[in-house]
Amino acid sequence: RWLPKYSARTSVGDITSLRVITAVKTPYLPDGRFDLGAYDLLINMQIEGGAEGVIVGGTTGEGHLMSWDEHIMLIGHTVNCFGSKIKVVGNTGSNSTREAIHATEQGFAVGMHAALHINPYYGKTSVEGLISHFEAVLPMGPTIIYNVPSRTGQDISPAIIEAVSSFSNMAGVKECVGHERVKCYTDKGITIWSGNDDECHDSRWKYGATGVISVASNLIPGLMRKLMYEGENTVLNEKLLPLMKWLFCQPNPIALNTALAQLGVTRPVFRLPYVPLPLEKRVEFVRIVESIGRENFVGQKEARVLDDDEFVLISRY
Amino acid sequence: RWLPKYSARTSVGDITSLRVITAVKTPYLPDGRFDLGAYDLLINMQIEGGAEGVIVGGTTGEGHLMSWDEHIMLIGHTVNCFGSKIKVVGNTGSNSTREAIHATEQGFAVGMHAALHINPYYGKTSVEGLISHFEAVLPMGPTIIYNVPSRTGQDISPAIIEAVSSFSNMAGVKECVGHERVKCYTDKGITIWSGNDDECHDSRWKYGATGVISVASNLIPGLMRKLMYEGENTVLNEKLLPLMKWLFCQPNPIALNTALAQLGVTRPVFRLPYVPLPLEKRVEFVRIVESIGRENFVGQKEARVLDDDEFVLISRY
Amino acid sequence: RWLPKYSARTSVGDITSLRVITAVKTPYLPDGRFDLGAYDLLINMQIEGGAEGVIVGGTTGEGHLMSWDEHIMLIGHTVNCFGSKIKVVGNTGSNSTREAIHATEQGFAVGMHAALHINPYYGKTSVEGLISHFEAVLPMGPTIIYNVPSRTGQDISPAIIEAVSSFSNMAGVKECVGHERVKCYTDKGITIWSGNDDECHDSRWKYGATGVISVASNLIPGLMRKLMYEGENTVLNEKLLPLMKWLFCQPNPIALNTALAQLGVTRPVFRLPYVPLPLEKRVEFVRIVESIGRENFVGQKEARVLDDDEFVLISRY
Amino acid sequence: RWLPKYSARTSVGDITSLRVITAVKTPYLPDGRFDLGAYDLLINMQIEGGAEGVIVGGTTGEGHLMSWDEHIMLIGHTVNCFGSKIKVVGNTGSNSTREAIHATEQGFAVGMHAALHINPYYGKTSVEGLISHFEAVLPMGPTIIYNVPSRTGQDISPAIIEAVSSFSNMAGVKECVGHERVKCYTDKGITIWSGNDDECHDSRWKYGATGVISVASNLIPGLMRKLMYEGENTVLNEKLLPLMKWLFCQPNPIALNTALAQLGVTRPVFRLPYVPLPLEKRVEFVRIVESIGRENFVGQKEARVLDDDEFVLISRY
Repeated sequence: RWLPKYSARTSVGDITSLRVITAVKTPYLPDGRFDLGAYDLLINMQIEGGAEGVIVGGTTGEGHLMSWDEHIMLIGHTVNCFGSKIKVVGNTGSNSTREAIHATEQGFAVGMHAALHINPYYGKTSVEGLISHFEAVLPMGPTIIYNVPSRTGQDISPAIIEAVSSFSNMAGVKECVGHERVKCYTDKGITIWSGNDDECHDSRWKYGATGVISVASNLIPGLMRKLMYEGENTVLNEKLLPLMKWLFCQPNPIALNTALAQLGVTRPVFRLPYVPLPLEKRVEFVRIVESIGRENFVGQKEARVLDDDEFVLISRY
Repeated sequence: RWLPKYSARTSVGDITSLRVITAVKTPYLPDGRFDLGAYDLLINMQIEGGAEGVIVGGTTGEGHLMSWDEHIMLIGHTVNCFGSKIKVVGNTGSNSTREAIHATEQGFAVGMHAALHINPYYGKTSVEGLISHFEAVLPMGPTIIYNVPSRTGQDISPAIIEAVSSFSNMAGVKECVGHERVKCYTDKGITIWSGNDDECHDSRWKYGATGVISVASNLIPGLMRKLMYEGENTVLNEKLLPLMKWLFCQPNPIALNTALAQLGVTRPVFRLPYVPLPLEKRVEFVRIVESIGRENFVGQKEARVLDDDEFVLISRY
Repeated sequence: RWLPKYSARTSVGDITSLRVITAVKTPYLPDGRFDLGAYDLLINMQIEGGAEGVIVGGTTGEGHLMSWDEHIMLIGHTVNCFGSKIKVVGNTGSNSTREAIHATEQGFAVGMHAALHINPYYGKTSVEGLISHFEAVLPMGPTIIYNVPSRTGQDISPAIIEAVSSFSNMAGVKECVGHERVKCYTDKGITIWSGNDDECHDSRWKYGATGVISVASNLIPGLMRKLMYEGENTVLNEKLLPLMKWLFCQPNPIALNTALAQLGVTRPVFRLPYVPLPLEKRVEFVRIVESIGRENFVGQKEARVLDDDEFVLISRY
Repeated sequence: RWLPKYSARTSVGDITSLRVITAVKTPYLPDGRFDLGAYDLLINMQIEGGAEGVIVGGTTGEGHLMSWDEHIMLIGHTVNCFGSKIKVVGNTGSNSTREAIHATEQGFAVGMHAALHINPYYGKTSVEGLISHFEAVLPMGPTIIYNVPSRTGQDISPAIIEAVSSFSNMAGVKECVGHERVKCYTDKGITIWSGNDDECHDSRWKYGATGVISVASNLIPGLMRKLMYEGENTVLNEKLLPLMKWLFCQPNPIALNTALAQLGVTRPVFRLPYVPLPLEKRVEFVRIVESIGRENFVGQKEARVLDDDEFVLISRY
């Protein structure tokens, strides 16, 4: 008897084995809607470059600028078009438990392989509240918890991670706090992805991290795969650090959005409150591309410095 | 170079070749949310019974009682779990052109094979308005237009169908107006699915209809397939007519919802404004099942008459 | 001790005493959003012309083309700006009981004086379902039930109206079925507003109707007030009939939208699926204005025939 | 000629003159919906206690746990019922510029007197992005900007505040960074409300703050008014500090929610991710009430320690 796929969920092991997960950018049309054509090409570039998973609608993908129906649609679309080639991790987290529950149910229903869950940023809550929040969504499917206190205003402490680690769906943590924290977890057998591109090489090779959930891999998926798969390589890491620093010179994904537009991979359309990097930083990017080699970046067009008036900023969409 | 599926849309020919499309019921949990477990089993029964397509969130599936995010999620879910076994036709029509555009874009983005479009019911519009409405959605993918004046208060005239038939995405019409109208279209080479179970046999074998978009096939997919595939069969048709009449003794899907609950295939949960059929009609259904043969119906449990207090009516969900 | 207004609801008597209620048009900006400036002027013209109530977001006001948040906002806005001058009746009905409940709760919470409730159009339901639907919303506040089978595909029979008339919040019926039906109700003491401008004079003076819920009063509030207040006046009624016929030459509010644009009261912006009347009908309107007298119409500008290219049709907003 | 209120907006001066603004709690029914009856009583207590404004749906009011339609409805409701007695400041800020624009337009349309705007938390943006964000909403009406880096992960620097201070709608800043920052602004004539109850006395009397946007005033509006209006009063301030410290022993509004439930003013219902304070803190609150005097707190019932099982935690609503 044929069984619906719905009962045949992704196993947690299918998630913990991923080393290169791209927090993929969401490209836009000039009216602010998703540019699915560009998105599909982007995902294709990730697959060809060796990324093994994507975060859909993460902070990099500007999930917080999407309506939930757009967000779930994008997850479903990604699964439908690419789900057999790459693991689809939906950022169905929210600072509202209701929203997190609803989105996570819907995300798994449309086939996402795993959920990414943030702690309730901005609103914040108590330790007991945090645990209740995660417990409300963990039964639904494989889950990565995301700790980024510089955005959320609140650290998810190891005690909390340990409290929720009893759930069989707990795949691991996307951790941004640093090497020491990474080591504290990996010593205990908890799977960690570095959330900081500039630390991921050391996290991986010195502190036991499994891999990276990367912004840089939007641009250089092949090199990020090399960095995570082919052993310690300080030469490569040093070579990439200027790019990684540049990507975070302003709150992500400002620089990434600017970069992909300048590579001719996406249209230069920004949803506010994001605006492009200033000219000198745009010039700097083209130099960085030259130093690393255009062939290592996604896209085929020449990298060029866009003018201010080539960018489209959208506030109603 | 690997191409994203998104560019490889379903062809119109893949839709016009379907003869048995089920306007599938949406089953609910006792709190009013979708019962995806039961839904998956239902779809599976359709596949096993030989249905070739499903309408997701049609009037039978109570799309008008869904929020759009639920609706698109259900389309995406169906594609994800069953899209390789059965064609998924999303009812992304609306009496609001904006909603129809938005839902149809999203439906195709999550992989539906075709859209079903109704004319703007209740609000109604002029002939020019109707054509503008359909023209706004026809470029997006294969499309079936649905004419049911008893629900919409407005007939889609042959002139309008002819006006939009120049679109290459126009697959055909789900027509409820009767044999004469069916013949008027099939004489011109327009693909027609009967929207009336009790007329579909004659529409198919005497008036040129391609097939049926059926409510009855929720219950008896195998027999409906036989009716559409194995030549004129007035004996079978006569045998099924009492069921078909019963299914429309009150506005559909009231009887269907009652039937599936009494077959033990779905939970006896109704979203208002639908309420179960009265007791004498519920008794009648069990007799009809006996006369046609339980083995021809979906599900394995004994058909039984449910008591009033076994039904759950939900107004907030 | 000061009491919140929330506990001091409008009485049903405050509603049954209204004779001229305008189903007010919703005007739009060129990007499709509400033109609140024009709306406020329109409502002001209604107050000055003697209309005693407005239906906000009715079929005339294109509530079916609004998102619910727009709809409730418009009700709240109208109450906030004009609630002490005119009664605000929110069309918070829906073919989904859930939506009707949610919108009606919200509408009363933002201060609407009464709700207008339609039977579940398009989806339709049984008599028992209809009664359950109305019973779900009637406890919330004064309610007018709206019967328009030509739009809904289903007549609300007198038996149903009588069944729900036990609710103390039941104010009456906006009835479009004709004089005989009106008389059947008024003989029993049920308050009736005619929903047909061309019948309202006779309904009021010969069949016991209380008044009218009018489309024409958007244009000629003062004359409609005269028609409802100053006794039988067949001369005036005859004079207005050509306008009333013209207003319904295509599904309402197509002609009304065209008229208000040609009077310079609203911008010539249409949300699809509505499109303007054809040129000959636009010419006819200017002649009708002349025959009734420009001074009897709202606005101050000369009535003029707009060109095709002056109209803006919006499908995404 | 009578003018619609819509053109007669609140002046900025009407906002800058407010000294006691309560960030009012949103109370819930056991099914998680708003308890408007309890809300109205709460607002009434604020008016009677001398609060001059309320923030509707702030972080304290759990705006981040509302859908936008609930949020705007609550603003409209508050204006409709209490707008002539107290200034209504809608927290229509968001980390999405689109949402902030939409909500702020709707909030002013339903009559709110001012908007509260946060910088884009969690997503964050550049200085240029921040300015663009605020510039998108400032033209709509009187605006208070809210700086709380411990929640947003990003300080709004004085340079940014100065950049947007040219807008005539800029009323001032709710500042949580401390006395020095307060003084820096008040020296320049920028209106400041302290966002920290425990600092507000000194901010007001030593550093030039206009007043406070308070959590504590939910409980003790009269004493907070005294603190802001009747001159330096270190005795009173000292007496209130234990309550103020207790209110922030866990992320606000956890303690406030617990307090109002124990005062019998709201039902003990929490929307997740908030959960009640632990027992020892609940005991501590009753002692604090005794030490300050029950008569100074809102409500009439005895303050009592609730048991764990009296609290209702809601995740779907």
